[in-house]
Amino acid sequence: MRAAIYGGPRSIQVGDRPDPVIEAPTDAIVRVVLASVCGSDLWYYRGESPHAPGPIGHEFLGVVDQVGDEVRRIAEGDLVVAPFKYSDGTCSHCRAGWTSSCVAGGAFGTDGFDGGQGEAVRVPFADATLVVIPGSDHLDEAMRSLLTLSDVMATGHHAAVSAAVRPGSVVAVVGDGAVGLCAVIAAARMGAGRIIALSRHPPRQALAEAFGATDILAERGDTAIEAVMELTDGVGVDAALECVGTAEAMATAFGVARPGAMVGFVGVPHGVEVPIGAMFSRNVGLRGGSAPVRTHIPELLDDVLEGRIQPGRVFDFETDLEHIAEAYAAMDERRTIKSLVRIG
Amino acid sequence: MRAAIYGGPRSIQVGDRPDPVIEAPTDAIVRVVLASVCGSDLWYYRGESPHAPGPIGHEFLGVVDQVGDEVRRIAEGDLVVAPFKYSDGTCSHCRAGWTSSCVAGGAFGTDGFDGGQGEAVRVPFADATLVVIPGSDHLDEAMRSLLTLSDVMATGHHAAVSAAVRPGSVVAVVGDGAVGLCAVIAAARMGAGRIIALSRHPPRQALAEAFGATDILAERGDTAIEAVMELTDGVGVDAALECVGTAEAMATAFGVARPGAMVGFVGVPHGVEVPIGAMFSRNVGLRGGSAPVRTHIPELLDDVLEGRIQPGRVFDFETDLEHIAEAYAAMDERRTIKSLVRIG
Repeated sequence: MRAAIYGGPRSIQVGDRPDPVIEAPTDAIVRVVLASVCGSDLWYYRGESPHAPGPIGHEFLGVVDQVGDEVRRIAEGDLVVAPFKYSDGTCSHCRAGWTSSCVAGGAFGTDGFDGGQGEAVRVPFADATLVVIPGSDHLDEAMRSLLTLSDVMATGHHAAVSAAVRPGSVVAVVGDGAVGLCAVIAAARMGAGRIIALSRHPPRQALAEAFGATDILAERGDTAIEAVMELTDGVGVDAALECVGTAEAMATAFGVARPGAMVGFVGVPHGVEVPIGAMFSRNVGLRGGSAPVRTHIPELLDDVLEGRIQPGRVFDFETDLEHIAEAYAAMDERRTIKSLVRIG
Repeated sequence: MRAAIYGGPRSIQVGDRPDPVIEAPTDAIVRVVLASVCGSDLWYYRGESPHAPGPIGHEFLGVVDQVGDEVRRIAEGDLVVAPFKYSDGTCSHCRAGWTSSCVAGGAFGTDGFDGGQGEAVRVPFADATLVVIPGSDHLDEAMRSLLTLSDVMATGHHAAVSAAVRPGSVVAVVGDGAVGLCAVIAAARMGAGRIIALSRHPPRQALAEAFGATDILAERGDTAIEAVMELTDGVGVDAALECVGTAEAMATAFGVARPGAMVGFVGVPHGVEVPIGAMFSRNVGLRGGSAPVRTHIPELLDDVLEGRIQPGRVFDFETDLEHIAEAYAAMDERRTIKSLVRIG
């Protein structure tokens, strides 16, 4: 089969890989229909996080081609979405809903497992990992939104859940990447009363507004903090969603948080320091991390299928597998919010 | 009046101070009956945190002597307990329950305000700050427990609330000072299924067990983490209550937290670093801080009055105001868990 191969910083090539086969009776083989490039793939692309040479990608949606003898809930021909990590569904952490910490789990596209950016993927623990999408003739618009359930929409939702967004909450979203924009959708979906999106790029500002942001601020850093405090009569926000992972984004999130607020963080931390003194004096909490996507998908699936949320609108660039290097370059150069790759 | 006066590290003397008078129509004057020495007073005593020379102490219970013209809910002769900070009850933060962040508030015994370790205290915003204790002829045992509502019992409760302890939760309490012991009471009161107390001092171990701890571990640091992991079949705890404030205590709390757990912290952080990478990869949250005691007292008051919880048992040393220096020394030298000072 053809698949994207990571060769080192700025090297994404398409090459031949062995067709995946059932190795364990709990495996399934999925033919990939749509895949996408994640912001975290860019950390590898830019050489800022290590990644072994080989298959890459962890966001995909496809059709089940074959299942192992012990697979019960998934059948050949099912349309499925995969969370970015596989998980066994039976360990203590999975049973508690923390599938991203599964003791037997791991991420697609690492440790020799097939990446999502290829023609097919062997999925371990298929019953526990994959989510079947009801129906078969979904419009392309719906398919694009369903694909976001593999990571960004579920991760944006995780930011909002981690920050305990409630009906009426005043929320700030730091970061206007695909995850930040999905966090706006999530906050709106959970009934936030006010959603302040920090964004300085007009196309992203427009999308944030379409997704439910009530206020858009183009400021950054201390100036952004001042602007949020002014918008909230000096009080600050109930929930700050940190969707970047940089020191500045985290400082902004804490800076706008009112006493008793929660910061929900989903950006992979790079050089972040936590202001423990301010957390203590103002009772601002911090929670988040690698999203347990498998746990979140069922809650979000109906809203996508019914068109109540349209996270697929974050894709503003698309190409095919043979041209996937261009999908990376477009995101790296910030010419696009998020890249879709049509495969099957 | 007579009052304890902080003169600098290791200098606590009793001297004469002006009798407090009503300065604002929302003030009350309280004659102190019982006061106590807080673990945070020891930071000043040891010179590890700054404190201006002058009155000190913020844990007290007494009888209302006089009220200003605008005080409505509090009357002369009422038995009252004061949270360690006064608060106006009307600002955005107070209305949201975060009284310790009141925009007009402050702590007793700082910034020229009377300390609780003296014969009388002027209490600002008396209606909002003080809590009236029903009844009048409480036994000494009850009075001692009521006194803990001014800080340690409410602070231990705050650790448990911050860590989201729920019925059935597996909890670890790091720290066997008065706050840690009260955190054991709080976790038991909230229905924890298992409470692992880290304590190496036999009298404190006994009290932790009496308060509801199901397991006692004498280990510290990495050895304590291993012991907790062994007790929990390698899973870790749902809620870790950090009641010390040191780097080691915080590292232990994070070390025993299972994926998705919360660390509730109420020890004033001294040299603490937050392991942001581990928080991300394991989705362990951190929340806590200076307890909004005024908000917590009403929920705890009935349990104290009915004798269902007996936090006053943390007092294992007592003296009178003239000998208060001995109350500090006994705690500083760890001869006692917590010192009670009989004043009125």
